[in-house]
Amino acid sequence: MEKVKARTLSGFMELLPGPQTQFERVRRILADTYALYGFTPLDTPVIESSEVLLAKAGGETEKQIYRFTKGDTDLSLRFDLTVPLAKYVAMHYNELSFPFRRYQIGKVYRGERAQRGRFREFYQADIDVIGDGSLDIINEAEIPAVIYQTFTKLGLKRFRIRINNRKILNGFYAMLELTDKAGDVMRTVDKLDKIGAEKVKEILVEDFAVPADRADEILAFIAITGTNAQVLSALEGYRGRNPLFDQGLDELKTVTAYLSDFGVPEENFAVDLTIARGLDYYTGTVYETIMLDHPEVGSVCSGGRYDNLAEYYTDKQLPGVGISIGLTRLFFVLEDEGMLNPDLSTAPTDVLILPMTEDLSPAIAFATACRAAGVRAQLYTEPKKFKAKMSYADKIGVPYVAFLGDDEVANGVVSIKDMTSGDQDKRPLAEAPAWLAGQIAQRNQATPIKE
Amino acid sequence: MEKVKARTLSGFMELLPGPQTQFERVRRILADTYALYGFTPLDTPVIESSEVLLAKAGGETEKQIYRFTKGDTDLSLRFDLTVPLAKYVAMHYNELSFPFRRYQIGKVYRGERAQRGRFREFYQADIDVIGDGSLDIINEAEIPAVIYQTFTKLGLKRFRIRINNRKILNGFYAMLELTDKAGDVMRTVDKLDKIGAEKVKEILVEDFAVPADRADEILAFIAITGTNAQVLSALEGYRGRNPLFDQGLDELKTVTAYLSDFGVPEENFAVDLTIARGLDYYTGTVYETIMLDHPEVGSVCSGGRYDNLAEYYTDKQLPGVGISIGLTRLFFVLEDEGMLNPDLSTAPTDVLILPMTEDLSPAIAFATACRAAGVRAQLYTEPKKFKAKMSYADKIGVPYVAFLGDDEVANGVVSIKDMTSGDQDKRPLAEAPAWLAGQIAQRNQATPIKE
Repeated sequence: MEKVKARTLSGFMELLPGPQTQFERVRRILADTYALYGFTPLDTPVIESSEVLLAKAGGETEKQIYRFTKGDTDLSLRFDLTVPLAKYVAMHYNELSFPFRRYQIGKVYRGERAQRGRFREFYQADIDVIGDGSLDIINEAEIPAVIYQTFTKLGLKRFRIRINNRKILNGFYAMLELTDKAGDVMRTVDKLDKIGAEKVKEILVEDFAVPADRADEILAFIAITGTNAQVLSALEGYRGRNPLFDQGLDELKTVTAYLSDFGVPEENFAVDLTIARGLDYYTGTVYETIMLDHPEVGSVCSGGRYDNLAEYYTDKQLPGVGISIGLTRLFFVLEDEGMLNPDLSTAPTDVLILPMTEDLSPAIAFATACRAAGVRAQLYTEPKKFKAKMSYADKIGVPYVAFLGDDEVANGVVSIKDMTSGDQDKRPLAEAPAWLAGQIAQRNQATPIKE
Repeated sequence: MEKVKARTLSGFMELLPGPQTQFERVRRILADTYALYGFTPLDTPVIESSEVLLAKAGGETEKQIYRFTKGDTDLSLRFDLTVPLAKYVAMHYNELSFPFRRYQIGKVYRGERAQRGRFREFYQADIDVIGDGSLDIINEAEIPAVIYQTFTKLGLKRFRIRINNRKILNGFYAMLELTDKAGDVMRTVDKLDKIGAEKVKEILVEDFAVPADRADEILAFIAITGTNAQVLSALEGYRGRNPLFDQGLDELKTVTAYLSDFGVPEENFAVDLTIARGLDYYTGTVYETIMLDHPEVGSVCSGGRYDNLAEYYTDKQLPGVGISIGLTRLFFVLEDEGMLNPDLSTAPTDVLILPMTEDLSPAIAFATACRAAGVRAQLYTEPKKFKAKMSYADKIGVPYVAFLGDDEVANGVVSIKDMTSGDQDKRPLAEAPAWLAGQIAQRNQATPIKE
């Protein structure tokens, strides 16, 4: 028979069993942490009507869409989880209770140019809180607390959540009478880390006709740094010149104060006036999260406050706040940088059971007892030589191997080899599953990331 | 602004938060149970190259494929999880250890005619064990044990796993010299439940020119029923006439014997000679699982043993055995038949915290303590009247509401209202999170299905 070459499309992450197990662990920590904060799981279709999905899209995004027809229907694959959320909330408005808090971890599709570390199919892991008409500011402070908890549970320590407030930026540019140029200015300022202050000023003045003195004011403004208290204090110096700015400053101070109530350590967040996050969508607090030792990766968790989630579908005013983790990209970086914890087992099973008797009943009974105790157990019954069996155990990286020979069965014990230490002990059959469960629980306390 | 009507495509399941929470619970039980048996999680792309995905497909399946081009690339959405597994194993053969045991729970796509209870996007939840060249028969007995455990953990009791062996069927038709008609005969026999024995005979004789006496032999054969022991004993009467039949009978006896070692009660499985499952693919044990009170639903978990997983991609002989649960369809049926357990909370949070003080710090601290104790906690801080807050608590169906007023804070206590019983008690702030965790753990012991 003519064979087809088995291959996976470029830009599509497909992991081997070990890394996949690590990925699942990360994914579950995200889901469980989100759930602890009262976010309900949501799952929307990967395929939507193009009319619905592209109600807002345009430009770069639209080019990347996987769009096609089936029969007479114009379909598209979702490119984020926010548009499906907007659709869902508009559609089910009368059946939902507000504030509506949901998390969604799912695959999204963008036909980007394929390059290392860029994916066309990737997981996003989002949380959003949606209000009906209004939404309390405390939600803007709780979101970074969720980010902090999530990354901490993953084992990441060296990260910083940068926060800013769009009202401060918009108010500031209004003070300078640059409101109509604010978009261009912010896009340029966004490049500060990459191109430096001098080049930013040059672009502002030459490309966007910003008067040189105001370009200096902008550079002075975004150069405000220091502790959060110092930055807030410097911002107080601008108070009274624009009401939107003042409101933004109040919000930023409130969020910053609550953050400490939520237990987010000062070292893990920073007021950063250079953060803007897109142009039209966000209207209040905005977030970015960077890994301090890998700033080149950019933000691994971003989001912010918006005033109008679903304006393309409904007249209802639905303000919200949310963040998104690009899970596939994050995992790629963690693996690439060697940050995944090698102490955590990635074996498909906790114990590999090798029956050495003709009658398999005792081995089957032991496997069943292990599983009842919550221990993942695999029977290995292929008729191979002992050496081949142990080589299989080594290859899958199983932490424990259990031998059940005639001797063991006669004496009601099982020989268990700890594959990490090489130690081998006999244990009573009745006690071994609980003992294994204890050992495994201890091993599983480690976090997926080891810095 | 012109609004686009928010809608979800027909044939695509999109659940409200309550049912979605139940769905997630079911999905997690499947994943956790599969993992207990040493199956490793796998995740393959939803999109594959059409050349790879359709290497085998044809006929009805191919018509249902979501197929499209992006740039110059001919792409298709996966229509099951077996073809991607075959691709994966062929592609990563040198990096995998055999037997390779994987589970995969993911969405697949088939553009079927939309009708109630039929979905175009649906989850399948598969397990497979793949051998390299050979695979021990015990795996064919362990698979129904996994099915039994899975359904039992879901809370389903009234189900039966029907097993048969394709070698018995093929051997039997060889005895009757009907091998070349075996496909047509089995397809016809498959309709026995629906159309009755008389009609089956009529089709066999008139449409497929099976001699009448052999049609009677076929009907007599598939009419063999009784306890498993009785059926096996009746089959012994055919022994010695065809070596393939004899081999199949030996396998069936082995599998049946091991099933009891694996702890599958006799009432939950039955040897059933009418089960055939497809035509070319399966070569040994085959499985179907029916809900005894809802036979009209058909099989909710099916699969079997096959000799050659990946023949379209590789010359390697890769025999395996696996099953698939049509999770979306199963969930639809469970909801439709009112079988989901109403005792299990579907609220997004375990406790809703209502701060009644100006200073939110004590409420935030209490929320943080609850989360640290594993209790899902939501702060409700919207500036609404008390009645509106309690109405929100009712609507989301939260089991506990915690009140923190000036009195409580001054006395270091929290008032907790059990929303099920209506009882309200004050508890010390330091003890309340652990107490809540205990209550919630007790509530969560219930199974998702209540028969």
